[in-house]
Amino acid sequence: MFLMEFSITPMDQGQSVSSFVARCVEIVDRSGLDYRLHSMGTVVEGELEPLLQLLQQSFEALQNDSDRISCSVKFDYRRAASGRLTAKVESVEKKVGRQLRK
Amino acid sequence: MFLMEFSITPMDQGQSVSSFVARCVEIVDRSGLDYRLHSMGTVVEGELEPLLQLLQQSFEALQNDSDRISCSVKFDYRRAASGRLTAKVESVEKKVGRQLRK
Amino acid sequence: MFLMEFSITPMDQGQSVSSFVARCVEIVDRSGLDYRLHSMGTVVEGELEPLLQLLQQSFEALQNDSDRISCSVKFDYRRAASGRLTAKVESVEKKVGRQLRK
Amino acid sequence: MFLMEFSITPMDQGQSVSSFVARCVEIVDRSGLDYRLHSMGTVVEGELEPLLQLLQQSFEALQNDSDRISCSVKFDYRRAASGRLTAKVESVEKKVGRQLRK
Repeated sequence: MFLMEFSITPMDQGQSVSSFVARCVEIVDRSGLDYRLHSMGTVVEGELEPLLQLLQQSFEALQNDSDRISCSVKFDYRRAASGRLTAKVESVEKKVGRQLRK
Repeated sequence: MFLMEFSITPMDQGQSVSSFVARCVEIVDRSGLDYRLHSMGTVVEGELEPLLQLLQQSFEALQNDSDRISCSVKFDYRRAASGRLTAKVESVEKKVGRQLRK
Repeated sequence: MFLMEFSITPMDQGQSVSSFVARCVEIVDRSGLDYRLHSMGTVVEGELEPLLQLLQQSFEALQNDSDRISCSVKFDYRRAASGRLTAKVESVEKKVGRQLRK
Repeated sequence: MFLMEFSITPMDQGQSVSSFVARCVEIVDRSGLDYRLHSMGTVVEGELEPLLQLLQQSFEALQNDSDRISCSVKFDYRRAASGRLTAKVESVEKKVGRQLRK
């Protein structure tokens, strides 16, 4: 299974871009895939193909309004592992030996 | 104020790296800066200089054990804005019109 | 048109990973898309769909040998712009007023 | 030694940002560190501290004109290795068995 973290931003719409982010998070939320939104991006868990589709749909959701769009993505593939949206954080907390801010 | 998201990983220690991540999260936790840990990295809020110090301390915490270390970082600077670890997510939720997974 | 920069690395194969990088660059080279290889990744120019296919093929090329793979990607979309593998660098050189190392 | 790849972009200056990129590349060029500019960023080789200084100076060079700045950075540390701006690419070419576009 893959974790994919992504953030996507129009470059020509001024400094307040949360309405554009909202469109893309809507797409993720409706996809049925498990995800977590944080202050610098969204992490989604799934197989690679539906994750790449989310990227494509996110660009399509912004391309009507923006002529320049920047997007950064990180993938973390681990064979036969799922539930990692929470498991990775719990594993770090266990090593540190106490609850962390999350 | 800056948001800095980072993840740092030794490349030569096999696929289970949470004990190394834990060292760096300890450093963040003890810094007194506000932060959030998620499954793909840690987001910290602060001025630029203490944030860059966290990067330096994180590398130092791994360099005794690892000969190859990879680190990715994203900065989001916004003048005169703080409290954005939670405010950015709330702003997206407000636009979407409902609670999101976070 | 899109520029896509990516790097993909197995996490469980030790610190020398150039033979794995080579497999993915082969895939890019055979795709017919224009690209440039640099020391931290590969930049490819094209439409979004063939670029996402390159990501998928690159993962497939490593998944037989690796159980954990990390990949970072950046997209830069600009409407109606092509030839940007060289044009963006030339534009910066023009502003600086002299040749730069590239 | 470290390789650091970075790109830094004002979010509130419209879609043409090469004059801002030029300021930061000037800073890199004058630092005396070895570097390569490509279409999606700049890769610099050096010890960690001067590299972090480049980040700080780059932000300072944009903060007078921009209220929102985005920056992405990747570090690749390898003990006792230098000259990797060219060596990593050559190593991939050797594995592929022919010259690649760079």
